[in-house]
Amino acid sequence: MSLRYAILAILTAAPLTGYETAKRFEGSVGHVWHAPDSQIYPELRRMEAEALVEGREERWGPKGTKTRYYITEAGEAAFRSWMATPLKYAPWRDVAHMQAAYFEWAEPASVRMHLKQHAAHYTEQIAQWSSQIEAIRSHEHPMIAARLERYPAEQHERIVAFKAFAYEGLIRLAQAEVDWARSGLELLEQLDGDAPA
Amino acid sequence: MSLRYAILAILTAAPLTGYETAKRFEGSVGHVWHAPDSQIYPELRRMEAEALVEGREERWGPKGTKTRYYITEAGEAAFRSWMATPLKYAPWRDVAHMQAAYFEWAEPASVRMHLKQHAAHYTEQIAQWSSQIEAIRSHEHPMIAARLERYPAEQHERIVAFKAFAYEGLIRLAQAEVDWARSGLELLEQLDGDAPA
Repeated sequence: MSLRYAILAILTAAPLTGYETAKRFEGSVGHVWHAPDSQIYPELRRMEAEALVEGREERWGPKGTKTRYYITEAGEAAFRSWMATPLKYAPWRDVAHMQAAYFEWAEPASVRMHLKQHAAHYTEQIAQWSSQIEAIRSHEHPMIAARLERYPAEQHERIVAFKAFAYEGLIRLAQAEVDWARSGLELLEQLDGDAPA
Repeated sequence: MSLRYAILAILTAAPLTGYETAKRFEGSVGHVWHAPDSQIYPELRRMEAEALVEGREERWGPKGTKTRYYITEAGEAAFRSWMATPLKYAPWRDVAHMQAAYFEWAEPASVRMHLKQHAAHYTEQIAQWSSQIEAIRSHEHPMIAARLERYPAEQHERIVAFKAFAYEGLIRLAQAEVDWARSGLELLEQLDGDAPA
């Protein structure tokens, strides 16, 4: 169901074709909610059937047409109602931590490889998310620019602040992952020091 | 595929029936890898077909039998090989952060509710994981006790250290979530202070 709200969220900034919606899930909202194209197109059609979005045909090239989806009042109401409802927290599922619990089955060299890869992956994520925050705060992010154009000036501060806040949360998590991986490398050195020769 | 390795991981501590395996996914490994019963039973049967585990019938009650699954040499080899292979990192998917990016659509009271719920949820997780670490370090955790009995004493330090390390990583993440939610409450106060009267 979260996919539906992610789609509604981006349609509050601008009406989009199915293709453009899928594209947004590669950048933009895709940073916080990943979804493959194969889920997005059918979900848009279901949302149209439920009148949360309205598809309008428009000309595309000399002979073709394409559908552009507009959020409806019912769609906005559904989005606001989700915003007022407590979330259900899913149980934890993280393969890196699950694997780490059984590292005694790996060679020390493999443990080191996993931990270095973990730190490198999340360091890269931090860089990506930091550049997102910069583009949000400077209003250069195309989705932010489109959104700000659509809403009155007195809302702009909140719009920008909450988007940056969401990414700051991801950066905190990624930093915790990097710190954890580094503490694992220290643990490994200590264990190898303790190991009987 | 990760479910398969989570199952192999727990079978390295002791052979288990399907029911006992499913139970382990409620506590123990379930803290790091959640899986519903409906996935565990079919996976065990697939793993038996692939000779990663061996099911042995045993008497159960006056007339019944049940199957106990033993990890095979091929199962151990598959587990070790997974342990030596770099992980693929899945794209991010977190509903709380996705929602937070669009908090301008929520009333300030709802934002406060979400952030407080977020902090409370992860504070509770920290408490649960901390008590797991304690039970691991004291060897009172039943799965740790079973595992230590099965492996030579010189491996015990690593077995215990890596399990505690995995949970420490989860605690770091949960602490980052709590800190983020608290910073959100501060942001909200600041925005409400800025809001036109």
